Amino acid sequence: METPAGMRDFAPKEMLVRKWVVEKIEEKFRIYGFRPLDTPAMEFLDVLTAKSGEEIEKQIFRIREENIGLRFDLTVPLARFVASNLELPKPFKRYAIGKVWRNEEAQKGRYREFMQADVDIVGTKSMRAEGELLNLAYEVLNDLGFDLRGARFLLNNRKILNGLAKSWEIEESVRDDVFRSLDKMDKIGELGVRNELEAKVGVEKTEEILESLKVDGGNGEKLEFAKEYSEEGAAELEEILFYFPNAEIDLFLVRGLAYYTGPIFEIKLSEEIGSVAAGGRYDGLIGLYGQGEYATGISFGIERLIYLINSRREDGLRETTTQIFVANVKPEFYPYALEVAKEFRKAGICAEVDLNERNLRKQLEYVNALKIPYAAVVGEKERSAKKITLRDMKTGEERTISVNEAVNKIKATYELRPGKY
Amino acid sequence: METPAGMRDFAPKEMLVRKWVVEKIEEKFRIYGFRPLDTPAMEFLDVLTAKSGEEIEKQIFRIREENIGLRFDLTVPLARFVASNLELPKPFKRYAIGKVWRNEEAQKGRYREFMQADVDIVGTKSMRAEGELLNLAYEVLNDLGFDLRGARFLLNNRKILNGLAKSWEIEESVRDDVFRSLDKMDKIGELGVRNELEAKVGVEKTEEILESLKVDGGNGEKLEFAKEYSEEGAAELEEILFYFPNAEIDLFLVRGLAYYTGPIFEIKLSEEIGSVAAGGRYDGLIGLYGQGEYATGISFGIERLIYLINSRREDGLRETTTQIFVANVKPEFYPYALEVAKEFRKAGICAEVDLNERNLRKQLEYVNALKIPYAAVVGEKERSAKKITLRDMKTGEERTISVNEAVNKIKATYELRPGKY
Repeated sequence: METPAGMRDFAPKEMLVRKWVVEKIEEKFRIYGFRPLDTPAMEFLDVLTAKSGEEIEKQIFRIREENIGLRFDLTVPLARFVASNLELPKPFKRYAIGKVWRNEEAQKGRYREFMQADVDIVGTKSMRAEGELLNLAYEVLNDLGFDLRGARFLLNNRKILNGLAKSWEIEESVRDDVFRSLDKMDKIGELGVRNELEAKVGVEKTEEILESLKVDGGNGEKLEFAKEYSEEGAAELEEILFYFPNAEIDLFLVRGLAYYTGPIFEIKLSEEIGSVAAGGRYDGLIGLYGQGEYATGISFGIERLIYLINSRREDGLRETTTQIFVANVKPEFYPYALEVAKEFRKAGICAEVDLNERNLRKQLEYVNALKIPYAAVVGEKERSAKKITLRDMKTGEERTISVNEAVNKIKATYELRPGKY
Repeated sequence: METPAGMRDFAPKEMLVRKWVVEKIEEKFRIYGFRPLDTPAMEFLDVLTAKSGEEIEKQIFRIREENIGLRFDLTVPLARFVASNLELPKPFKRYAIGKVWRNEEAQKGRYREFMQADVDIVGTKSMRAEGELLNLAYEVLNDLGFDLRGARFLLNNRKILNGLAKSWEIEESVRDDVFRSLDKMDKIGELGVRNELEAKVGVEKTEEILESLKVDGGNGEKLEFAKEYSEEGAAELEEILFYFPNAEIDLFLVRGLAYYTGPIFEIKLSEEIGSVAAGGRYDGLIGLYGQGEYATGISFGIERLIYLINSRREDGLRETTTQIFVANVKPEFYPYALEVAKEFRKAGICAEVDLNERNLRKQLEYVNALKIPYAAVVGEKERSAKKITLRDMKTGEERTISVNEAVNKIKATYELRPGKY
């Protein structure tokens, strides 16, 4: 029996990696003072569709005979929560890591159920917020072990884009359409973008738009240029660059979502891998659900990060966090094996015993199947001496020692807390 | 704007408790060698309804225009997963902690979205499995800080109940109905049960049933009695009692679910609080989805446990894991505040800075609103001396010291790792 299309089971060895990634990210979120918020998987349809846009509205999983549907992101529930909890001290720095659902055509690499990891800062218009988000993102990626030397932290501002759009003198109605095409520069290249734009605004205007965005030089030149279209927008970017000098202004960066109002950003690990985190300021969104608030946030492409981490692991995936299996040579020693396992567990070592009444050979087959690094074998000799025979499953080396000694050896050679991976 | 009926937001202070409980439980699951499995929120309807029973079938949230629905428990997805992953080494010891959904009438204390925490052992018919589950449950509850002196670990066996039902000579068709009534002894008392039974099987039979279940004495007497109705069932309970002598045979224990086939158990903290964990053996379930397997498991009433933990906390709930707020006396010291915060974070201390360009008084108001225990105030004096003024927000005591000294002080007085609560 199968899972529905685009929805996946995660077997233990996959889960252990997923949990490691989530835990790392969460730890960093907390170290910056972000606080966890959880909201239901389902929301009223009018909450979900308030600003989703047509595309996403079609992708909402709707519940039969009810006016509710499954959340398609974590930002809309945050906006709904903030708008109806006015007493929250500001800024409200919240993180959320959870599943979202989109009823798209399931394809390779595109899922109908996937995880998101978001941090948002609600209730400040200062660019200090954006500065914090970018520094946090840098640390998260660094902590996950990614090489950030080739990474690009792209930055733009909707205010500048709006100023530019005005100068292009294109109609309001096609503006978002033009933005959407510009945003595809990565995916379809300049020629592709040019073709799309020409169909929308004609050859001449297309030339004007593309040329106007090509500014030679670095951040300094781009800021100078941007000032002409939005003083405020340029000043915001300048301030963000003060807090995070690694960022790089990219006037082609647009970001798909309709709700952005100020600075937007996107992080690419390398040209091949593409974006692993992105976000921006959306000062108008929360007001749709009640009292308005300033807000900005970043979302990590956690599924992609997990995929990348999986694919670079040379040692293969761990099957279990179990560190030792206490094997009995005969059923009569099972009670002693239980005692020994209890001692290991008390010392913080993940330990298993034989639940199947199998012979020693079969027990050790299980140990090997799960790649458990140690076995403690117990029989008459061990029980009467109150010891165990510790076997290193990799080397085959055996030593008859006390549980305490074994605990120390395992902790020294195989650092792994029960909560860890 | 509201959440749909029976579905809740969990604000940070509630989430911190929830996460603490989940982490504690998960740690214990792992120390016993259980491995995480994650399955989608949605399953095909024929998977969900294979053995759900009429009652639960009605409660499935169905997706519009698709033959899928939301999972109502974590056991059915486990069964589906195991039946279609035949290569899994056995026993497959899996845990899962996640949300499930039931479209019931939302009432006080009854939710349409709630969390479950399950451990199951698939692939062994030995009672060692049940012994492990009960010992694990004991340790989980103990670790969460519950007083287990008055706790009751109730035990029965469907095989014995089936044997009894045969002796009562009641029809197969009303048997489950009779069991359901007996299971309500707790909720509606003997009189209530008697009334229900009389409507189903008449006065005489009711008397016979109720009398036959009343066995004076302890586990020994009950085992003797039970043997007459199922040798095998009694032997199983005897073995479980060897591994977990604290358990107590209760012939009235039935458990609602239709899929149990052997030992069943239920843990009560006290008469008032009722059941906080329950489970049993369901050797027939997995076969419905493919190749059959022995299986037994226990589910923790995690929502109830969280409720109990919340209600006994005298110190109130923590608002945040932030340990220190680095306040600047003027905006010009914000860059220094950032440096200081960075040092704290590197040392594993959760630190925040002012993202709102507020004056010192307003910054400290925020610190108090979130009950952050320490503030580090920085101005000219501190910056030039490369120090901070550490303020204990409870006592108001202030000392100008280095970040390092502050780290040590905070770690000594306020033990809280970033991943912890």
